[in-house]
Amino acid sequence: MRICLIGFGAVGQGVAKAISLKKKDIKDKFNIDLKIVGVSDSSGSAINQEGLDEKLLLDIKSKTCKVSDYSEYGSTNIQGIELLDSVDYDCLIEATPTDVKTGEPAKSLTLKAFAGKKDVVTSNKGHLALFFNEIINKAKENDVEFRFEASVGGAMPIINFSKKTLPSSKIESIIGILNGTTNFILSRMTSEGSSYKDTLKESQILGIAETDPTQDVEGIDAACKTVILANSILGIDCVYDDIDIEGISNISSEAIELAKKEGYLIKLIAEVSKYNLKVAPRLVKKNSPYAVDGTLNMATLKIDLADKVTVVGKGAGSLETASAILTDLINIGKLKN
Amino acid sequence: MRICLIGFGAVGQGVAKAISLKKKDIKDKFNIDLKIVGVSDSSGSAINQEGLDEKLLLDIKSKTCKVSDYSEYGSTNIQGIELLDSVDYDCLIEATPTDVKTGEPAKSLTLKAFAGKKDVVTSNKGHLALFFNEIINKAKENDVEFRFEASVGGAMPIINFSKKTLPSSKIESIIGILNGTTNFILSRMTSEGSSYKDTLKESQILGIAETDPTQDVEGIDAACKTVILANSILGIDCVYDDIDIEGISNISSEAIELAKKEGYLIKLIAEVSKYNLKVAPRLVKKNSPYAVDGTLNMATLKIDLADKVTVVGKGAGSLETASAILTDLINIGKLKN
Repeated sequence: MRICLIGFGAVGQGVAKAISLKKKDIKDKFNIDLKIVGVSDSSGSAINQEGLDEKLLLDIKSKTCKVSDYSEYGSTNIQGIELLDSVDYDCLIEATPTDVKTGEPAKSLTLKAFAGKKDVVTSNKGHLALFFNEIINKAKENDVEFRFEASVGGAMPIINFSKKTLPSSKIESIIGILNGTTNFILSRMTSEGSSYKDTLKESQILGIAETDPTQDVEGIDAACKTVILANSILGIDCVYDDIDIEGISNISSEAIELAKKEGYLIKLIAEVSKYNLKVAPRLVKKNSPYAVDGTLNMATLKIDLADKVTVVGKGAGSLETASAILTDLINIGKLKN
Repeated sequence: MRICLIGFGAVGQGVAKAISLKKKDIKDKFNIDLKIVGVSDSSGSAINQEGLDEKLLLDIKSKTCKVSDYSEYGSTNIQGIELLDSVDYDCLIEATPTDVKTGEPAKSLTLKAFAGKKDVVTSNKGHLALFFNEIINKAKENDVEFRFEASVGGAMPIINFSKKTLPSSKIESIIGILNGTTNFILSRMTSEGSSYKDTLKESQILGIAETDPTQDVEGIDAACKTVILANSILGIDCVYDDIDIEGISNISSEAIELAKKEGYLIKLIAEVSKYNLKVAPRLVKKNSPYAVDGTLNMATLKIDLADKVTVVGKGAGSLETASAILTDLINIGKLKN
């Protein structure tokens, strides 16, 4: 399976690392031969039709920040979308940053790959939150595979779990914590009694919250994931604008203290059901599956025969997100074998 | 898929109910036609090669407690294992009670079905805890399918989850709460400050603990599940006698109170790894995935690429356990289609 990897930030580098660690296992176990033939970041591209050396790619990126400095064979100034015309590949791994305003460059990259009859695996949320059905239909029209486990919950394998592990049951709703940064902030406010402002600052220093934390703290990231779960698992046709969103920036330490006294915690909860599509701070019971701390993500599926089943996992992280991408690659590879 | 169902207690009746509820969906979605052609309990059997009426079976069982009173067509005195010679079937659902001393009647039923080239789905733990490898090898020799999701954690789909959802990762250990009764008792002792003895009595009145609670409170049930997970998920060749077992009957309310003050809970934890095969009461952190209350089961898988992933679900319940059996049936049916 010849891979074209576009986006070489934390996720893209995680993919290179995961492939380097696992390609022998995957070859032995599934008879799938993973080979990265092209990688691009904002500096340009590295291309080698025989396969790029993952370790060298990572090494160069960490030294010069430019994948185009990869010098073994063909490093070039070819940018993002042009790369798709410059290499022979079977599957695009699309790991560019999420843009919830336009869904770009993810959307254009994905549709171009589809048009070329290539499979696509993505970690991006923007184009899915804005154009889910359009993109899924294009994949069907072109008879290609499109997978996006990594777009929701990083290493919490909610999409494959729902589809692969629970075939006997009908999933009625999903309620969960889909953003690790806000869960970290609320957990720290609860354990330390600290204010929202101070805790946000602490999270930024720790590298958990971004310099501009809007996407996380205002619930935008969780809302994108809500759209993806609604469409892909519950078959609810919706887009980003259909989600009611309230973030955590108005949560005071007093509110948390009050909840705590009654045996509750405040969490930023996403609810995905026919009746409700929303992201908002809510009270959850201590010692319930919702009461997970730190940057963990969780999702509880209400299913007809088995009541509630919950999955919990790291919501972010370079290698964790890459593991979800690798699972998608393996599942595509199995179909082709 | 013609089903022979042996054992018509809570699990067996759950299977009849689940099939009755879901057979149309399963036919439509997977093109698998589920039909129960024989059922036996201790009273004898009900047989109809054209398919038994699930609702009538449940009705009669609830009225007379004897499946052999099913009168439409052939109700008989044929007992358990003889039934396998008396019907044409494709898959045995083996739902007899667990016996950790002999593994019977599960073992004999299973091996007889294998010898007849039939697939088997089980909810039983005894024969797996005692003879895991022997039974797996017999299934392989006879080239039949053998599934046992329901034997561990009821509706917590840990086995299918590990195999189906996480193909990219290597699972290094499993740590979890595998017994719902003891989790209920410890949770109540924690919330109420009550003694072990009183809480056990309360659990018996509620029908959560059995009249003879030994299997649960002494960790025997959790140890059987530990063997099953060790063999099936981690590939550790072990049997029941290899597990270090300590139950919860010595846990005092004082110990729980002490732990609570430091932010910990006491849970009966099963640990499954190359280095440790044990069931024992242990301290777990509040607000961690281990801190689930009531009769919930949970298991945290430590995996190489994705750190820790946790699944939580109802550990018992008639329909919940049946949902796991139904998932196994569907997965077998998909292979045959």
